[in-house]
Amino acid sequence: MKVWHFTGVGEPLVRAEVPEPTAGAGEVVLEVGAAGLCHTDVGILHDPMWSEPVGPLPLALGHEVAGTIREVGEGVTGWAVGDRVGVSPNGTTRPGIGRDGGYAPFCVAHPADLVAMPDALSFELASVGTDAGLTAYSAVMSTGGVTAGQRVAIVGVGGLGQVGVRVAALAGAEVHVAEVKREVWPLAEELGATSVVADVAELAALEPEVIVDFAGFGETTSKAVQAVKLGGRVVQVGMGRLEAMVSTWDLILKRVTLVGSRGGTIEELAEVYRLMAEGSLAPQLTTIGYDDIPDGLDRLHRGDVTGRLVAVPA
Amino acid sequence: MKVWHFTGVGEPLVRAEVPEPTAGAGEVVLEVGAAGLCHTDVGILHDPMWSEPVGPLPLALGHEVAGTIREVGEGVTGWAVGDRVGVSPNGTTRPGIGRDGGYAPFCVAHPADLVAMPDALSFELASVGTDAGLTAYSAVMSTGGVTAGQRVAIVGVGGLGQVGVRVAALAGAEVHVAEVKREVWPLAEELGATSVVADVAELAALEPEVIVDFAGFGETTSKAVQAVKLGGRVVQVGMGRLEAMVSTWDLILKRVTLVGSRGGTIEELAEVYRLMAEGSLAPQLTTIGYDDIPDGLDRLHRGDVTGRLVAVPA
Repeated sequence: MKVWHFTGVGEPLVRAEVPEPTAGAGEVVLEVGAAGLCHTDVGILHDPMWSEPVGPLPLALGHEVAGTIREVGEGVTGWAVGDRVGVSPNGTTRPGIGRDGGYAPFCVAHPADLVAMPDALSFELASVGTDAGLTAYSAVMSTGGVTAGQRVAIVGVGGLGQVGVRVAALAGAEVHVAEVKREVWPLAEELGATSVVADVAELAALEPEVIVDFAGFGETTSKAVQAVKLGGRVVQVGMGRLEAMVSTWDLILKRVTLVGSRGGTIEELAEVYRLMAEGSLAPQLTTIGYDDIPDGLDRLHRGDVTGRLVAVPA
Repeated sequence: MKVWHFTGVGEPLVRAEVPEPTAGAGEVVLEVGAAGLCHTDVGILHDPMWSEPVGPLPLALGHEVAGTIREVGEGVTGWAVGDRVGVSPNGTTRPGIGRDGGYAPFCVAHPADLVAMPDALSFELASVGTDAGLTAYSAVMSTGGVTAGQRVAIVGVGGLGQVGVRVAALAGAEVHVAEVKREVWPLAEELGATSVVADVAELAALEPEVIVDFAGFGETTSKAVQAVKLGGRVVQVGMGRLEAMVSTWDLILKRVTLVGSRGGTIEELAEVYRLMAEGSLAPQLTTIGYDDIPDGLDRLHRGDVTGRLVAVPA
């Protein structure tokens, strides 16, 4: 089968021919239905910081995977050939990070990381649900602890942020958005935002109780800590930069909590799928072919993507 | 009466003669038994950042106050002349910050901010208990959520840090300390520390679940976020500097919580007094006279104080 191999930081992806995987004991093989493209891929491709968790190389990237079970290994119970599933990227499989992932026609997964796809759910949505969906859902609902009636701000309406805005609105929060790109403002409003500003600093006047930063450009974190309400909570998800200058003055005098969020649970992923299947969570997707994965990742790198890119095998 | 007046940032304290205060409705007048010297005083004296919360000027500083009630204003119930009390600095009185405080023979307080002193408690301990004691207790127990058996690290064994180490040890935690000044290491061990290191970065090998930073020199916060365990908690109390560069990489990948802590509740202050009265919390104090307050604050500013300085009227 033909896969896209990552061979090292700074190197372009390489189209390689490799044998189709088989299911070892305690594993299943999936025929990939769709694989989402993620900023983490851009990090892996360009930033040596990511070297440690990634490998061994060469590696087929693609950690947002949904597909159909084509083989069930020895000792696997509860799953059968033909089941449509999403793979949590937060378990032991680590597709596209610790072993070959979804930028390939087939990949291997561990049963404990699988979530059944509702019939109404497309592979495209299911793949995006595993990471962009789950990470954003968990950041807003679990780490952020967002509840009905709360005033919440979402920073950045990209692949994750659009889910964040929608999830917070579905939870009954009053949602405000900070987003640099004005062309995305109408989308933010459609998703349920009450107001949109360009600069995180402008959120201060609203005194949000929770701010979830899906951008993570250092300055966004700094300004979120300054803007959040007394006793408020800033959830850090985006990794546009890898550090931020934080005012310990504000942190202490306002008793602010700044907390990192990452991934989520299998139960949360099932809830994301439920919301997607009923149509209340419908992130903006652009479907591309597998041949266009390198180009799609370049576009992500340049910040030239609205919503989320999903690759579907030919 | 003679008080020490703060007149403006960068100005030395001025010995001034002012009328003794009287109790308005809903107020009491205390004869000050002792007033603790605090790094916050140093901030007020030297850093314009503090101008906003402080005043009107001139102002008698001294926000760590314990004394004896000498007058009870109209409408005050539950307190009587002769009662020995500490004043929480976190309520509406704001002694030494929002109105004249304890660097004076008498000062005014609001009844809701008072905590009765156990008979066994000295004014010196009771004054230090209101801020250094309470802030450190609340940071470790409430904001840090420290429990028995946890591995906890305390950064900085100054006036607050020494209370932090002791309180964590009393809670049954395994306490490790990072403290630059080696001459303080034996004190840290006496208070219950299992190990002491010079540099916060050295704590990483221990993977503490909670780190409470009583120093707050920017770098201490940065290193604490790097050193804390996966899913761990860094509590920021010290304000040696007013900002810190934080690795959002560590924050996110380790799901770290960085949270500011400040003050505490009346109930926590009562618990601090109970621990002090029974002898299990006995922070190192140095008593000075009121004439020596400016000199004491200079010593604090230079970092030339071990434990806590407390001023007692002549």
